[in-house]
Amino acid sequence: MSTGTLLYAQSGGVTAVINATAGAVIEAARARRVNVLAGRNGILGVLREELIDTARLPRPALRALAHTPGGAFGSCRVKLKSLDEDRAKYERLLAVFRAHDVRWFLYNGGNDSADTALKVSRLAEESGYPLTCVGVPKTVDNDLAVTDCCPGFGSAAKYTAVSVRECALDVAAMADTSTKVFVYEAMGRHAGWLAAAAGLAGRGADEAPHLILFPERPFDEADFFAKVRATVERVGYCVVVASEGIRDGEGRFVADAGAGKDAFGHTQLGGVAAHLAARVKEALGYKVHWTLPDYLQRSARHIASKTDLLQAQAVGRKAVQYALRGMNGVMPVIVRTSDAPYRWKVEPVALDRIANREKKMPASFIRKDGYGITDAARRYLEPLIRGEAPPPYGRDGLPCYVAAAGVLRPRLLADWNH
Amino acid sequence: MSTGTLLYAQSGGVTAVINATAGAVIEAARARRVNVLAGRNGILGVLREELIDTARLPRPALRALAHTPGGAFGSCRVKLKSLDEDRAKYERLLAVFRAHDVRWFLYNGGNDSADTALKVSRLAEESGYPLTCVGVPKTVDNDLAVTDCCPGFGSAAKYTAVSVRECALDVAAMADTSTKVFVYEAMGRHAGWLAAAAGLAGRGADEAPHLILFPERPFDEADFFAKVRATVERVGYCVVVASEGIRDGEGRFVADAGAGKDAFGHTQLGGVAAHLAARVKEALGYKVHWTLPDYLQRSARHIASKTDLLQAQAVGRKAVQYALRGMNGVMPVIVRTSDAPYRWKVEPVALDRIANREKKMPASFIRKDGYGITDAARRYLEPLIRGEAPPPYGRDGLPCYVAAAGVLRPRLLADWNH
Repeated sequence: MSTGTLLYAQSGGVTAVINATAGAVIEAARARRVNVLAGRNGILGVLREELIDTARLPRPALRALAHTPGGAFGSCRVKLKSLDEDRAKYERLLAVFRAHDVRWFLYNGGNDSADTALKVSRLAEESGYPLTCVGVPKTVDNDLAVTDCCPGFGSAAKYTAVSVRECALDVAAMADTSTKVFVYEAMGRHAGWLAAAAGLAGRGADEAPHLILFPERPFDEADFFAKVRATVERVGYCVVVASEGIRDGEGRFVADAGAGKDAFGHTQLGGVAAHLAARVKEALGYKVHWTLPDYLQRSARHIASKTDLLQAQAVGRKAVQYALRGMNGVMPVIVRTSDAPYRWKVEPVALDRIANREKKMPASFIRKDGYGITDAARRYLEPLIRGEAPPPYGRDGLPCYVAAAGVLRPRLLADWNH
Repeated sequence: MSTGTLLYAQSGGVTAVINATAGAVIEAARARRVNVLAGRNGILGVLREELIDTARLPRPALRALAHTPGGAFGSCRVKLKSLDEDRAKYERLLAVFRAHDVRWFLYNGGNDSADTALKVSRLAEESGYPLTCVGVPKTVDNDLAVTDCCPGFGSAAKYTAVSVRECALDVAAMADTSTKVFVYEAMGRHAGWLAAAAGLAGRGADEAPHLILFPERPFDEADFFAKVRATVERVGYCVVVASEGIRDGEGRFVADAGAGKDAFGHTQLGGVAAHLAARVKEALGYKVHWTLPDYLQRSARHIASKTDLLQAQAVGRKAVQYALRGMNGVMPVIVRTSDAPYRWKVEPVALDRIANREKKMPASFIRKDGYGITDAARRYLEPLIRGEAPPPYGRDGLPCYVAAAGVLRPRLLADWNH
């Protein structure tokens, strides 16, 4: 067995395939006789010295990670600040690493995690502690720089396109006497990647979704109403996909406008779809239904994209390879080498090219009128939702997911007083 | 070829498998050389003499009905009143039947449709017109009398159980630093069948869903808050499934309490999950997320139950058999002959035993504390979500659904002035 252990931690919002990355990391490390510890609830588990010993995970549970959504070891929303501001935390991380002979640190997350991995690697260098830090990409938001796409996005995109195609058939069947406008709210606070993916559900002006609202374009209510009315008059109904992050001309989130007081004077949470539905009903008089899939869109492993699954596993395996080769401060990213046929490979990129940056959706992906996607967007998006990779189902009709809580490694340090 | 045609119409909210029933009807009739007309948008198409000639549907489109959600010929929300009040409409129906030599009328819907089919059959009898009327069961609400279950329900139930299991894994992974309470809103204005199906996602008090709110039990906010807090303290998070139809102690819909004015003074549509989420946040201070799947739950053909699909097809075939045998005023219903192994058969039942009745969920299906399902409920529900029947997928990663608009048969009557 190599000297040292590899520490893996998940960060930020989970996805349908982040556990597939975890499974690939553990398998690849085991193949090289390196033991993997997993932070319980991500970096928090490292700070608290709550480390799951994956050597004690039974093989069936390990295999099941490939088809289990959520974050099997737990994740967290904790952003470490600069080395100066959060020095105590960074030093605690190093202390835990030393105590458990952690020589490789794999941090699976988005922009923030790339930044944290980078800072940890710098502190280790300063301190003369031999550590190799590798970032592993993950986010349904698809907003990581450099990489062509982010593991997790393809499955959420597939969920979105399939769901919009399905509910559009429902609305089409009922529109004559019932719901004429349907609003689907997609995740995407800053970039309209998932809303764009909904565009794959149909082609041409008369196929749903008829109108997509992107955070990249200011929301003009009057223009939107006119478009909804014209669509209902032409097609008989109108399916709208709205990014949660759309803003009006003054830059205010439309979702915040949805927040207010309910009939009892209680605070109401915001929401774009609820707000638009109420406004369309009020202004145009149509019967409106709406949906807020929320976490369903990022946890729907049952409708995961096979492309996405393969990429999630590939970045996990490559991350282990890079780490064991001592390639410090890099992240394996997806490089697209061809659109048709779709071909991709994984390559290492320096973390400082990724940390704290955000990939916007190219302007060329949004149709000139602002309400749909272009052929360029289709060429980019379509391969990402391609292929099915259903989980196994039990006799009870439910997917066989695992809850891999795991066994904690005994603690060696004093309590962490944060 | 037999003399006469068979008229098939869909009614009310569509489901993931109502087209599978339609496909089975058309195939069974074709096998007996009987042509099938389908009302465009249900009974409205009959009144308007907009009849789709299914003989002109290409065979691939016909086969695709088995895996296409929504209502391929359109449905409608139109309830005919008594024979006296709506006599002109009933007579128009008969006139259209005569004009197109319709001798068999299959009406695919819920309680209301059974009632309409019954009235049409009585009027035909009075008028001496030889017509056989057969109801065909369908509803995600599972509230039809006599039948053990309703085609459409099993697939919506499977969607619900799978979705709740998936989002619960997401919440579990994030709860330490993020969302602690998640609320899933299930369809069910009068009966908690779909909310109960969510209970299949877990077992025991610590597995999600932790709390189910049924319309059959008055909602007690203080008690609910106490249960949520206790669950979060014990498990770390709490997944709540709420029926849209829950009411408070005075019988007021909780969803209506969610309606109100937003920040701009605009009317806000109601919703149980949004309301409960805001209240829990306000009262207990937890971070809360919520989802309203709305139409997604009844159109998610991609996660349909195989049991449900087989039953939807079986009632379609049997309806044709009954009709051609002249069994007037009946409906094929599902009879469960064994729980384990699950066995069922289809039998004819007189429509007047079904029309305008509503099957409630048995009190024995709800746990004593009111927040979960019993073993009896599991025994009933579990076979209904069993088995997978995924649609074929295209190279583009999307299910191959058809839009079977179809070709209208030439009209023979004057316009209908309603």
